[in-house]
Amino acid sequence: MRVLPLFFGLCWCALAGAATPPPAPTQASGAGAVFAAELQATANRLVGQALQGNTAYAIVESLATEVGPRLAGTAAEARAREWAVAKLQALGFSNVHIEPFEIPLWLRGVETAEVLSPYPQPLVITALGASPATAPEGVAGEVVAFASLAQLQRVPAGSLAGKIVFIDEMMTRTQDGSGYGVAVAKRLGAGVAAARAGASAALIRSVGTGRDRFPHTGLMLAADENAAPAVPAAALAAPDADQLRRLLGRGQPVSVKLVITPRSLPPAPSGNVIAEIPGSQAPAEIVLLGAHLDSWDLGTGAIDDGAGIGIVVGAAQLLLEHLPHKPRRTVRVVLFGAEEVGYGGARAYALEHAQELPRHVIAAESDFGTGDIWRFDTAVAPERIAAAEAIGELLRPLGIGPGSNSARGGSDLGYISKAGVPVVDLKQNGWDYFDLHHTANDTLDKIAPGDLDQNVAAYAAFIYLVADSEVSFR
Amino acid sequence: MRVLPLFFGLCWCALAGAATPPPAPTQASGAGAVFAAELQATANRLVGQALQGNTAYAIVESLATEVGPRLAGTAAEARAREWAVAKLQALGFSNVHIEPFEIPLWLRGVETAEVLSPYPQPLVITALGASPATAPEGVAGEVVAFASLAQLQRVPAGSLAGKIVFIDEMMTRTQDGSGYGVAVAKRLGAGVAAARAGASAALIRSVGTGRDRFPHTGLMLAADENAAPAVPAAALAAPDADQLRRLLGRGQPVSVKLVITPRSLPPAPSGNVIAEIPGSQAPAEIVLLGAHLDSWDLGTGAIDDGAGIGIVVGAAQLLLEHLPHKPRRTVRVVLFGAEEVGYGGARAYALEHAQELPRHVIAAESDFGTGDIWRFDTAVAPERIAAAEAIGELLRPLGIGPGSNSARGGSDLGYISKAGVPVVDLKQNGWDYFDLHHTANDTLDKIAPGDLDQNVAAYAAFIYLVADSEVSFR
Repeated sequence: MRVLPLFFGLCWCALAGAATPPPAPTQASGAGAVFAAELQATANRLVGQALQGNTAYAIVESLATEVGPRLAGTAAEARAREWAVAKLQALGFSNVHIEPFEIPLWLRGVETAEVLSPYPQPLVITALGASPATAPEGVAGEVVAFASLAQLQRVPAGSLAGKIVFIDEMMTRTQDGSGYGVAVAKRLGAGVAAARAGASAALIRSVGTGRDRFPHTGLMLAADENAAPAVPAAALAAPDADQLRRLLGRGQPVSVKLVITPRSLPPAPSGNVIAEIPGSQAPAEIVLLGAHLDSWDLGTGAIDDGAGIGIVVGAAQLLLEHLPHKPRRTVRVVLFGAEEVGYGGARAYALEHAQELPRHVIAAESDFGTGDIWRFDTAVAPERIAAAEAIGELLRPLGIGPGSNSARGGSDLGYISKAGVPVVDLKQNGWDYFDLHHTANDTLDKIAPGDLDQNVAAYAAFIYLVADSEVSFR
Repeated sequence: MRVLPLFFGLCWCALAGAATPPPAPTQASGAGAVFAAELQATANRLVGQALQGNTAYAIVESLATEVGPRLAGTAAEARAREWAVAKLQALGFSNVHIEPFEIPLWLRGVETAEVLSPYPQPLVITALGASPATAPEGVAGEVVAFASLAQLQRVPAGSLAGKIVFIDEMMTRTQDGSGYGVAVAKRLGAGVAAARAGASAALIRSVGTGRDRFPHTGLMLAADENAAPAVPAAALAAPDADQLRRLLGRGQPVSVKLVITPRSLPPAPSGNVIAEIPGSQAPAEIVLLGAHLDSWDLGTGAIDDGAGIGIVVGAAQLLLEHLPHKPRRTVRVVLFGAEEVGYGGARAYALEHAQELPRHVIAAESDFGTGDIWRFDTAVAPERIAAAEAIGELLRPLGIGPGSNSARGGSDLGYISKAGVPVVDLKQNGWDYFDLHHTANDTLDKIAPGDLDQNVAAYAAFIYLVADSEVSFR
């Protein structure tokens, strides 16, 4: 959606929406106490520019069209890195380079399923990432349904020999995406729990909120904590999970057959792509802006995470193009590789830049689709909350409400956050995100030009305020 | 959607919505001149019953769950016939039987496509029904795009050797479904026109109005009028047609590879399933109510045409259950086989019942999903229009407006209509129908209990009024 260009300071009290009205802004308190008026005015200009036009949509259009799907470790992900280097250089960034690393490669194969009895018919599935393969001719068995992973974990070990388990748990639609954390447990753990129970394979209701016939892929655990391997596992599209539920409700035993033939291959090249706006006065101090370059293989990675790439590159590019001077600190854009298959890029970055992490002033990642930002969360030292709140105040004219100090910082920031780098969440509305997430339907047409503008405006203002000031969050 | 139980005669003037207010109803004119008050009152009771509860949803739920996809000529269609016989007998119909016939069998195989250059990536396609296969290793070539079938038909014969044509015509969303007639031309003719031009294969933008990544299948012409064979042809999902359009717009030649391996096999068994409510006084006079039992293979045929099966069986079942006496004439429900693959059941019925067709009083078919009926069209002799309009008047409380006398009668009624059987169209709102039509996403969850009630009410009233009166449309 589009947001009118409301400039900072014009009307943020009216928009704040807090139960207790905030105090009126003055130069002596709130944002004014942290950021000089000139800084605020410049941030305002960046917001105005972002809302009037920016490169975010063109960037995701280019990535989703000219690369398309880019599973980690594949030639397509390598093409995405080449695309990113060329794009970031063309936009005028400095120090554009690839930091390579390797990850285990998993490639999807055939994936079919069918009800054998009592009512023969095909079912639409997709293999979960890292799943082992079935035999080429597949595996068949009677279905045993569970309402949750926890329920499956409670059955006696070895008690489901020859069965195929079906975890039929719905995902709750939420604005903040919290339904995902609950629902993803069954995706991660179904294969291992089914193996422990002695079953031949596992089916789950897709981790997703949509009603359309798209199965949602995503990573699973290929082995438990004792390295005992999982059984093959796949996700049913929601209509097929409904169908299997109805069939089981008829009261007769239901047998299904499942064929999935993915291959787990030796480590393959991945990499992070890095670009910078070098700081003019404190270039060693880093404001990190992240998104991930890899995608699942089924869609074209437009919302996951082409949108995030567009948002962070588009925001940084506004600073490059519209500031009269380079910011004090270095703005570093990191396009992580291999996020979907286990945060390989996040780990590689934390290792490669370990010496530098103490000089990372703050980090933020965009990886939640196209929804407007509705909340600003931080994870900073208690004595730095005032500075964080000052930024939050300045974001309110964009419809962004106050948040908490319990930000998690995006999946690619996990390692550096643990290492002490302060993180923030510019939390997007995730109401519809899991309709498309990890499906074949994650394609460019789901993003309209302008959808990303409010995000670009918020990120541009945020990184500018931190990069061109001396504020600390440590 | 649900409709409040408005009984005939209570408020039809207010709902009619005509530019010129219709005359107030009296027993001496309009419906009252054609149908006795007792008949109208009974029709009212059937409407009320339909809107308070009927078997339509349970019927489509049973068919879409216990049979699922049922491509003509397959074992699945045979199971659908067995399902129908059991269901119609259980509901209390008489003379339930199968009338077998044979049709050419076409079975889908592998179907994959990919852009080879300049930006390699997969495309989502589905083979068109009756398409020949490519070589097992596929066919590759440079894409040449056309805005319409007509544009392709104008190129010199043999001028596109080695190319793959792409007809990139959008379908217009309309309430009355008229966009389909325009759009379907490219599906029917692309393979033949591409062959004439010397191309190796044809791709079309799916015939559909949805934005999701589902390709729409459907029948094509396997040969032209001189028996010259078509080339292999497939439909791209809308996002993939968009993608191919964008890639072509980059200005470089675009090469794609296409693998489709359907098989055309010798004639296989299909059949119509017939059930009756025998007439009490004029059993040789027949009121025909149709829908089709077969479906495409990709979805579970919930809206196409499980919904129609539910509507017509549900409507007829109301007469069985709620009338104090059998209607004068015979009500015959015909569940046609092999509609999707060329109207095999329609032809077989017309041949089998040729002697009886002069005694078919009227025929109607439900085959347009779950949308409410908004218009009542007829195709009756000019001197019978008054009788048709009398029925139309009685349908207005259901929100059904007046129509024309140019009904086409549903695809399975084409042969018998040409043979002189009068037909009507209870025209449904088709606004969303082509989002799902002929896709994998045609599944039961797209129908809510109650969605079919207004249709059941209209059909029940319509067939009752004709079956229990002496009205003629010939």
